[in-house]
Amino acid sequence: MNDYKIRDIGLAEGGVKRIEWASSRMPVLNLLVDEFQESKPLTGYSISACLHVTTETANLVIALKRLGAKVYLAPSNPLSTQDDVAAALVKYHDISVFALHGEDLESYYENLYIVADKMPQIIMDDGGDLTKVVHEKNIPTVIGGTEETTTGVLRLRAMAKDGLLRFPVIAVNDSQTKYLFDNRYGTGQSTIDGILRATNILISSSTFVIAGYGWCGRGIAMRARGMGARVIITEVDPIKALEAYEDGFLVMPMREAARMADVIVTATGCKKVVTEEHFSLLKDGAILANAGHFDVEIDVKYLRENAKSIDKIRDNLERIILKSGKTLYLLAEGRLVNLAAAEGHPAEVMDLSFSNQLLAVLYLIDNRGSLKPGVYVLPEELDRRVAFVKLKSLGIMIDELSEEQKAYLTSWREGT
Amino acid sequence: MNDYKIRDIGLAEGGVKRIEWASSRMPVLNLLVDEFQESKPLTGYSISACLHVTTETANLVIALKRLGAKVYLAPSNPLSTQDDVAAALVKYHDISVFALHGEDLESYYENLYIVADKMPQIIMDDGGDLTKVVHEKNIPTVIGGTEETTTGVLRLRAMAKDGLLRFPVIAVNDSQTKYLFDNRYGTGQSTIDGILRATNILISSSTFVIAGYGWCGRGIAMRARGMGARVIITEVDPIKALEAYEDGFLVMPMREAARMADVIVTATGCKKVVTEEHFSLLKDGAILANAGHFDVEIDVKYLRENAKSIDKIRDNLERIILKSGKTLYLLAEGRLVNLAAAEGHPAEVMDLSFSNQLLAVLYLIDNRGSLKPGVYVLPEELDRRVAFVKLKSLGIMIDELSEEQKAYLTSWREGT
Amino acid sequence: MNDYKIRDIGLAEGGVKRIEWASSRMPVLNLLVDEFQESKPLTGYSISACLHVTTETANLVIALKRLGAKVYLAPSNPLSTQDDVAAALVKYHDISVFALHGEDLESYYENLYIVADKMPQIIMDDGGDLTKVVHEKNIPTVIGGTEETTTGVLRLRAMAKDGLLRFPVIAVNDSQTKYLFDNRYGTGQSTIDGILRATNILISSSTFVIAGYGWCGRGIAMRARGMGARVIITEVDPIKALEAYEDGFLVMPMREAARMADVIVTATGCKKVVTEEHFSLLKDGAILANAGHFDVEIDVKYLRENAKSIDKIRDNLERIILKSGKTLYLLAEGRLVNLAAAEGHPAEVMDLSFSNQLLAVLYLIDNRGSLKPGVYVLPEELDRRVAFVKLKSLGIMIDELSEEQKAYLTSWREGT
Amino acid sequence: MNDYKIRDIGLAEGGVKRIEWASSRMPVLNLLVDEFQESKPLTGYSISACLHVTTETANLVIALKRLGAKVYLAPSNPLSTQDDVAAALVKYHDISVFALHGEDLESYYENLYIVADKMPQIIMDDGGDLTKVVHEKNIPTVIGGTEETTTGVLRLRAMAKDGLLRFPVIAVNDSQTKYLFDNRYGTGQSTIDGILRATNILISSSTFVIAGYGWCGRGIAMRARGMGARVIITEVDPIKALEAYEDGFLVMPMREAARMADVIVTATGCKKVVTEEHFSLLKDGAILANAGHFDVEIDVKYLRENAKSIDKIRDNLERIILKSGKTLYLLAEGRLVNLAAAEGHPAEVMDLSFSNQLLAVLYLIDNRGSLKPGVYVLPEELDRRVAFVKLKSLGIMIDELSEEQKAYLTSWREGT
Repeated sequence: MNDYKIRDIGLAEGGVKRIEWASSRMPVLNLLVDEFQESKPLTGYSISACLHVTTETANLVIALKRLGAKVYLAPSNPLSTQDDVAAALVKYHDISVFALHGEDLESYYENLYIVADKMPQIIMDDGGDLTKVVHEKNIPTVIGGTEETTTGVLRLRAMAKDGLLRFPVIAVNDSQTKYLFDNRYGTGQSTIDGILRATNILISSSTFVIAGYGWCGRGIAMRARGMGARVIITEVDPIKALEAYEDGFLVMPMREAARMADVIVTATGCKKVVTEEHFSLLKDGAILANAGHFDVEIDVKYLRENAKSIDKIRDNLERIILKSGKTLYLLAEGRLVNLAAAEGHPAEVMDLSFSNQLLAVLYLIDNRGSLKPGVYVLPEELDRRVAFVKLKSLGIMIDELSEEQKAYLTSWREGT
Repeated sequence: MNDYKIRDIGLAEGGVKRIEWASSRMPVLNLLVDEFQESKPLTGYSISACLHVTTETANLVIALKRLGAKVYLAPSNPLSTQDDVAAALVKYHDISVFALHGEDLESYYENLYIVADKMPQIIMDDGGDLTKVVHEKNIPTVIGGTEETTTGVLRLRAMAKDGLLRFPVIAVNDSQTKYLFDNRYGTGQSTIDGILRATNILISSSTFVIAGYGWCGRGIAMRARGMGARVIITEVDPIKALEAYEDGFLVMPMREAARMADVIVTATGCKKVVTEEHFSLLKDGAILANAGHFDVEIDVKYLRENAKSIDKIRDNLERIILKSGKTLYLLAEGRLVNLAAAEGHPAEVMDLSFSNQLLAVLYLIDNRGSLKPGVYVLPEELDRRVAFVKLKSLGIMIDELSEEQKAYLTSWREGT
Repeated sequence: MNDYKIRDIGLAEGGVKRIEWASSRMPVLNLLVDEFQESKPLTGYSISACLHVTTETANLVIALKRLGAKVYLAPSNPLSTQDDVAAALVKYHDISVFALHGEDLESYYENLYIVADKMPQIIMDDGGDLTKVVHEKNIPTVIGGTEETTTGVLRLRAMAKDGLLRFPVIAVNDSQTKYLFDNRYGTGQSTIDGILRATNILISSSTFVIAGYGWCGRGIAMRARGMGARVIITEVDPIKALEAYEDGFLVMPMREAARMADVIVTATGCKKVVTEEHFSLLKDGAILANAGHFDVEIDVKYLRENAKSIDKIRDNLERIILKSGKTLYLLAEGRLVNLAAAEGHPAEVMDLSFSNQLLAVLYLIDNRGSLKPGVYVLPEELDRRVAFVKLKSLGIMIDELSEEQKAYLTSWREGT
Repeated sequence: MNDYKIRDIGLAEGGVKRIEWASSRMPVLNLLVDEFQESKPLTGYSISACLHVTTETANLVIALKRLGAKVYLAPSNPLSTQDDVAAALVKYHDISVFALHGEDLESYYENLYIVADKMPQIIMDDGGDLTKVVHEKNIPTVIGGTEETTTGVLRLRAMAKDGLLRFPVIAVNDSQTKYLFDNRYGTGQSTIDGILRATNILISSSTFVIAGYGWCGRGIAMRARGMGARVIITEVDPIKALEAYEDGFLVMPMREAARMADVIVTATGCKKVVTEEHFSLLKDGAILANAGHFDVEIDVKYLRENAKSIDKIRDNLERIILKSGKTLYLLAEGRLVNLAAAEGHPAEVMDLSFSNQLLAVLYLIDNRGSLKPGVYVLPEELDRRVAFVKLKSLGIMIDELSEEQKAYLTSWREGT
């Protein structure tokens, strides 16, 4: 067995079953592994990954292992580590995991240093921390990396712009089968799920105000309406606001919407979206949740500083009675309600993201030497392949263009 | 303090906060209490209730107390008792509760005998057990009762038919503001909620088969579609099947639907709806849930007897590998998934039911002496009042017919 | 050829094709005819019908003819007669039709007298006029009748109550496969259709106010939402108002709704639903339509009397500039917009109604002698049969209860 | 009065009212005109436009006139000219129109030559014909142009690529407030409208197969579902297919979908989407419609050549009985059903497009001299302005970013 640092290897049995459950919801990854299993294209490669240690990640690193890689796994957040999953990976899959749920920041960074020191050819990152470490330590073996998140990609682009990026990195986040699906369908559902678990309110009896009509906001709006709520959208972009309107939603500024809200959900990626001004307009008993970004969309600081009393009523449900006498309910302390109060993205959504991750690793190896340092998007044909395999796993075939049709499209699109 | 039998009075603080949370979602009950608080019309009356000891019931019995009644509370199911709620009622509201979570059947029946022996004028029942005890023991003080459930009402009607019912009982279940709302909106939402908590699957990636298009089935179908699923309805009644079709759903027999199902949800009120025949047709990995009735809709017995292995994967999620090699997932052991894996009806739904309960008690007292033994439905004006107060609590006013309009409607409806 | 009174027999060819088109959308009627064609159970019977002379009615009377009956047809409204259909029935189907589009009232009543004088055994009515004539003229041959409409049934019930009804009449209107389908799905769609044909507005850019949440109102609300509108419901019944709310709609009184309306559609069955009070609150350019009843729901009289100018802009679209300077648009002069500006119920809806009509005629004959004078609803088994045959025509099979299931349902529903 | 070539100036009165009706649905254009009316920025400019001569175009050219321009109008299609609109423009607005409904190709091209010869500074085009003429005739005055359609833009890009384009052209089609709205909301609605006018079928009783899940296909799918249909999507692109699936639709190849279709609607922009192979699989009585492109999506030629009989049943509804005996119904001869059988885009949709047209003209003038020959998209700020004014016309305000928020967004988006 390899070296590792985990909570308790005795937790492995529970982890195994949960990893299998996630596997049963991740058919794309499984079908891709089947396809490459014989040729084992990752043989001889070491991969260091910095990813949330969850059942879905477990399936990704097991997949990398099956295709021949040696894998080292560190967590991308000290709070997301599932100790039973870490134990199962070590005990049954011979994967070196360095992760403890709730470890402190020092211990967390130590993990990154450990996996960086394994001299990997490929690194996989979620947020950019491992990429930073690998650059700082000047690890010589790295031929490429992958990045899962928007935030990480922004950091990479800034590095690339300043000429600091030393190898090619695939921005998995920018694949259509990632960003078109995880926010709309994943966040859309899991936000409703988080609100239900935290409150058990009747959604059809509620008016929802959703701040932001980007991919996340659209997903949440679609699902809140699907559960029977009246839905009001607030926006700062008039084009998105108009789309929301033509999609049948009410649209108004937050200061008007706040008066009508039973539940406000923020999904803007900005700060101070719901503030003192709006708290004063809200109905007594209104519920506040954030599904967009860090805990800055709702002005939680103001709430805490101006509260007469704060009581935890249920898990992830705080009652805040302001000095004005108004009662507001805050979910998950203003953090991401779909992660804190529910379970984040369902495995089916991670299946698409992580299949892109796997293809990104293979692409980096296939194109070893020919890719200059920089941030890349996966070629559209690989993106399409993920979608195609997902459809296949659902038993769905689609049409194919005939030669005659291809010729026709080419000719008129070229305007000849 | 009155006599009581509860788990631990030290749990009261937690119960208080949760009762207050439910109260904040039960505006109709609160507004009705406000209205009658001054006249205290229940002064001098004893009420024995056999109801699930939950935060919503707590608010009902507190309401009865506020209007002057002496209240004794026994549980209607040994598993539904929330010990912190029982403690809070005893400690802070001077209500005699006889309920322990998980008590045995003997202890459960003892509770019924205790509250029956309190010589109540009114009994409130959920399923008919207390009514039976009161008749057996021939309690002489009872002037009337209320019944919450379909099953209880059926038992009462059978008693009335045989001339055995000795006092008037209000079938609260038959009020429109009960049956039009709790199944469609309550069960509809909580079934989706239960499935999500048990599995965290992506609903939009799934095809749902819903057996039964009664009120429950309609609610579940509406919400499953609202979360993005393709929805197939199975029915035995051609008129309901045709409604499902015109509502835009696919309709087919279970033996065809089973082949396409990712998730089957039964909501028929019948037995053996999903059986060996269908198990053999299901896709590997299909999920089975029941939202209709007892645990007989899915043939769980067959599954258990023909399993090669059964593993608990997560709370309320069992993996059953049949001897044939097929893997199926069973939720909540085939019991009601919305109760077992989620929290049953939201407080907003119970608010309507329990407001009917309160009005039923007041109606029995107002009409004391003039109602013969039998099963009664609340007069439609009281039903409408519940709806009206609910609308008021939402800040919604509606139109009123003018005298001219009333005259017009009367004249043409009478065909003159 | 029989005697007849029609516009022009030369129009028959066009009528034939349109009757065939309707026939292709009326599979239930066709399948029922196939079933009875051999036994010809109507042989020897004369039937006088007072029905709108449309392509759907043509198929009904052709069906009656095929099963052996002699049929006489008068129109139930002088404006709904389609002269090409009348011609086709006379020329190709040997059916005696007495109907001219736009004939005057005297001529209209003469038609009723003619078909009454044919000494029918069965009469079929739409509104009650023929029934009245048959009673006045004391036609001795009649053994029973059928009635299509709510209004007609109300008149019949009044007659029965006063002991004036001399034979049994089947209230086809009260069959579930009639009233559950025609208003929700028929009126729902055709109202949207009528508004589009009259205005060509973009519905997703509009806020609809729908007065009334009965079957019609629900259908219109469902479809308006389906086309992207924001939908507000007004109601006088709090229970229906609450259903509308839990179905996700906004609910408010007309005086508030009027301020937000781009389009108002009335569907109440009452008068003066939109009046002077509301006209003054409406936005400049608001559109008014009625889908409920006669032209009294919107106070058209007030509009005409207080107009500065009235211009016809398009078919069924009038611009009314009030003396106050406000511009309002009135559709179809306040008459039923789905009939006037679109084509009323699609053939698929009439197929269900007219299949009930056919079964009603057969039922009257089967039960000849055993039915006392009075108003009857078709037995539920016939209602179910219509639904079953409709499903069959769609290629849809449904489940059947096993004996074990039947026994189970019986036992618990009886509370034993 | 200027020179003109129209059918009959006596038709002007009817045209005036219809132009006013369209104006009442085009608030954005009106508000923009109000804004610029005083400064009259088009004074001294001549504009030659080649656009469909409809009520919406009338409002655009009137707007140009009001801002000071001299306008010459030729039609972009000989069949779309509305003679009453042409008359009204000439008689009441002093605009030179050269358009006759149904004129022949020679006459059509003559119109283009006439308006080109007016020596305009700006040309406005719909499909590229006028641009071609202006280049051929080498009109020296032109400083820029605008183009409304996808096809026209493709032609322009081909010209630009070959270095043949001699002035800057604004691709109005590529503004978000054009392409995000007209296909989804405009075509979505008008396709349903066209099918209803041609057939009057009950949509909720039908299964729709929609070929293509681009903007048009999405709009049609959304609206068909909203009217109650079961909807099946066919696609050639796996990513779009997967989006359709996660949006809750059934997805399958056309050869499977054809078996289940009651109605097929093509919206692909390709040819031979529904062909002999599929005709043989269709149910008897299936309906075929095209909403995508020219009349090549359905293989109409095959149908005509293999028909036993072809009958016109209603306007835009042909019954084709194939030699095989199968009956199919073809709408609008396979041409665009929303244009042929309904009225194309509602005025509200054209309001957005034509407001972009107006801003494009102003932009060309403002940037006179600084834009090189080439194809341009309107700056996003103008796009947003159109959306903003549309929201304003609806009485909708939206939020604005504070300075603090702008700073925050900038900082994290830049990854610092």
